[in-house]
Amino acid sequence: MPPLSPLDLPHDDPYGPHNLPYGVFTTRDAPDLRRIGVRYGDHVLDAGAAAAAVGSPHAALLGHPTLNPLMAAGRPVWQAVREELRTWLTESAHRSAIEPLLHPLTTVTLHLPFEVADYVDFYASEHHASNVGRIFRPDGGPLTPNWKHMPIGYHGRAGTVVVSGTPVVRPRGQLRPPTGQPESVQPTSDQPTSDQSAPAHSALPPFGPTRRLDFEAEVAFVVGAPSPFNTPVPLSGFHDHVFGVCLLNDWSARDIQSWEYRPLGPFLGKSFATSVAAWITPLDALAAARTAPPARDVPLLPYLDDSATDAAEATDAAGNTGAAEPGGLDLRIEVAINGHPVSHPPFAAMYWTAAQQLAHMTVNGASLRTGDLFASGTVSGPEPHQRGCLLELTWSGRDPLRLPDGERTFLEDGDEVTLTAWAPGPGNNRVALGEVTGCVVPSTP
Amino acid sequence: MPPLSPLDLPHDDPYGPHNLPYGVFTTRDAPDLRRIGVRYGDHVLDAGAAAAAVGSPHAALLGHPTLNPLMAAGRPVWQAVREELRTWLTESAHRSAIEPLLHPLTTVTLHLPFEVADYVDFYASEHHASNVGRIFRPDGGPLTPNWKHMPIGYHGRAGTVVVSGTPVVRPRGQLRPPTGQPESVQPTSDQPTSDQSAPAHSALPPFGPTRRLDFEAEVAFVVGAPSPFNTPVPLSGFHDHVFGVCLLNDWSARDIQSWEYRPLGPFLGKSFATSVAAWITPLDALAAARTAPPARDVPLLPYLDDSATDAAEATDAAGNTGAAEPGGLDLRIEVAINGHPVSHPPFAAMYWTAAQQLAHMTVNGASLRTGDLFASGTVSGPEPHQRGCLLELTWSGRDPLRLPDGERTFLEDGDEVTLTAWAPGPGNNRVALGEVTGCVVPSTP
Repeated sequence: MPPLSPLDLPHDDPYGPHNLPYGVFTTRDAPDLRRIGVRYGDHVLDAGAAAAAVGSPHAALLGHPTLNPLMAAGRPVWQAVREELRTWLTESAHRSAIEPLLHPLTTVTLHLPFEVADYVDFYASEHHASNVGRIFRPDGGPLTPNWKHMPIGYHGRAGTVVVSGTPVVRPRGQLRPPTGQPESVQPTSDQPTSDQSAPAHSALPPFGPTRRLDFEAEVAFVVGAPSPFNTPVPLSGFHDHVFGVCLLNDWSARDIQSWEYRPLGPFLGKSFATSVAAWITPLDALAAARTAPPARDVPLLPYLDDSATDAAEATDAAGNTGAAEPGGLDLRIEVAINGHPVSHPPFAAMYWTAAQQLAHMTVNGASLRTGDLFASGTVSGPEPHQRGCLLELTWSGRDPLRLPDGERTFLEDGDEVTLTAWAPGPGNNRVALGEVTGCVVPSTP
Repeated sequence: MPPLSPLDLPHDDPYGPHNLPYGVFTTRDAPDLRRIGVRYGDHVLDAGAAAAAVGSPHAALLGHPTLNPLMAAGRPVWQAVREELRTWLTESAHRSAIEPLLHPLTTVTLHLPFEVADYVDFYASEHHASNVGRIFRPDGGPLTPNWKHMPIGYHGRAGTVVVSGTPVVRPRGQLRPPTGQPESVQPTSDQPTSDQSAPAHSALPPFGPTRRLDFEAEVAFVVGAPSPFNTPVPLSGFHDHVFGVCLLNDWSARDIQSWEYRPLGPFLGKSFATSVAAWITPLDALAAARTAPPARDVPLLPYLDDSATDAAEATDAAGNTGAAEPGGLDLRIEVAINGHPVSHPPFAAMYWTAAQQLAHMTVNGASLRTGDLFASGTVSGPEPHQRGCLLELTWSGRDPLRLPDGERTFLEDGDEVTLTAWAPGPGNNRVALGEVTGCVVPSTP
């Protein structure tokens, strides 16, 4: 009996024909030739070569070293290419042409699949924002007064977005001085971090490798079709502009962040590295995962009000490709440290949807570019085991996590953090999102 | 007597051979052909054509439609090209070849001269930060506790950086609700903006065109040579990485900004547009403008401590090209509204230098890319007529400015804001920086 063809996937493979995420890969024999790949099971289809082999009109678009030209082409092209890919991978007429163009995942190197334009990070989980508020502002309300009126966000550093697998060097920087001990006393990883603490103006703050290195489990959205200046994207425009979804780890140095962030927000506590998955999942692969977001506590301005569309969506999400309606996504995330699961954040619990984030980001007239990346902020659910970062999981170091290899308050050198996720797909199938993983390596002085 | 050649500049022309800023232009007969230009008097030299005409080894580098390849080439190449340009424009042997390649400024269109990678905005004026603190946090200290220990900064939106002359549409958005009047009452342009005000969670915030549109007079620095991950750029590396300088207007919607900025910093109040000059002035043109920054009130961590180099620099700035030493720059800025000067901010008064900003931005291991743009933040001096934005000039609307065409608290539709600047050059010459101008046009619903 001949070995199973990579085209013969088990029916329930989470990287089956209902998924088809895009990436960019090189092979060992051509390490400088970046090619667009489509994941199928544990193989990667050379999409440009496949398109050329079958005479596809999209061969040129799939022949680039990044996804950006395909992303810029817009939704009708995305849908046509996706249908072509499904046909090539599943219909016997193409079998002999396609099979030789599948590379085992273990033989390829995956690269950052697109050129990042602007990177924006939101703060869209009520559970996360409330926990952070309780930790950092114990004397105030858990949420700032604006939080339920708009998706709060900020721009991050696009130039330090790296692909899954890239080692993350522990960053150095100015660290929040301990309360009342501005000089010489180094902060420890379980020190209190109340915002009220502050050094005397005349003392040197501590400086060195962060002692409170954290992950943040997030879901990111990749803009394909650009938008012009002064043309806000309505909620209904979400599927016309957003090409796909990927997991993202917003590495954070809490002692750098908490010292620097007033009054202009996070900067060096975040900008040293942001890891994204190597695979971008098309929105159309997640049609069955669409779900209504949590009930809103307060009325929303019209440009953010998704109450009408969400009601419709919740009733017919199963079979509906639903191009126009915004909504939540039922993505089940797992966070593991050194292979040991530490959290299971539910993306469906996010207060603000990606469509609302996109509408907000452009309501002031700001344009979108192909390659804009916007992330959800830490995904945390209501339960303690659903919290998406160590700051929350250990309550700022007060309650260490017990792992097989010892306790953790924050990340140690050598720790490998891996985010995985799946979503309900058509029928009983699952749609897997590409993992994002990274290993902490020691600071280099 | 034949008409004066554009090569025969007055000795004291601020765009003479000691200046030579770079831009990108098109001509009417080739509107799609972007070319690198060098300003000389009121003309633009077609630099690529000139290099080709004289057989320069840098013809290819100057033949691109943006400055990015030249910027990436590094300081030795910048110096060699600058010396070539000076030779072509001033030595009679080249006159007949060069003269036909000079286009009158009035006949060309100027474009954004480089592709912006990441955009970072700092907050480096003590006078500005203190004034803003007094306006927004009247009950607290004027500066946050971190301010004198590090240059505070944040990432802005690179995709909405536009070239001088681009109209700026008044942005719309959620506006800070007036204190105690969360619903239906629209804020007026002279309302108080204390941070203590907040709407009830259940009320809709006001939404519409900003009523508090402001400019911010800033100086920006353009990164040429990139830096790898985990390789902080020391103070002494500033001149190796920074290609040049330009004026920047960080348009700001104060009522959007003050409502959204907690806890993650400015976002939509800034991201609608940031205007930069069409001309990038090489750092070497500003050697005579180098000056020691103000005395530091508190000791600085070693990576920011410029006290040794500044002392040396202050004594020999006049003749010294000073490649390695950081320091302040004596740029005299003027802000005009509809041609009427309203402020004269002195860049020499900035507490934090651009070299310190670059060192801080990379101390955590973040890499630099060609095209990274970082700005100083609003330049304000100690005197009321030296304040670099209307928020300060009118003290948040309390003290309107009297202009020939009426009073201003914030900008009106139709207002044109123009920033110009000059610096001391060699001998008694001045070095002009390219202006940045923009006209406010009404919001489009």
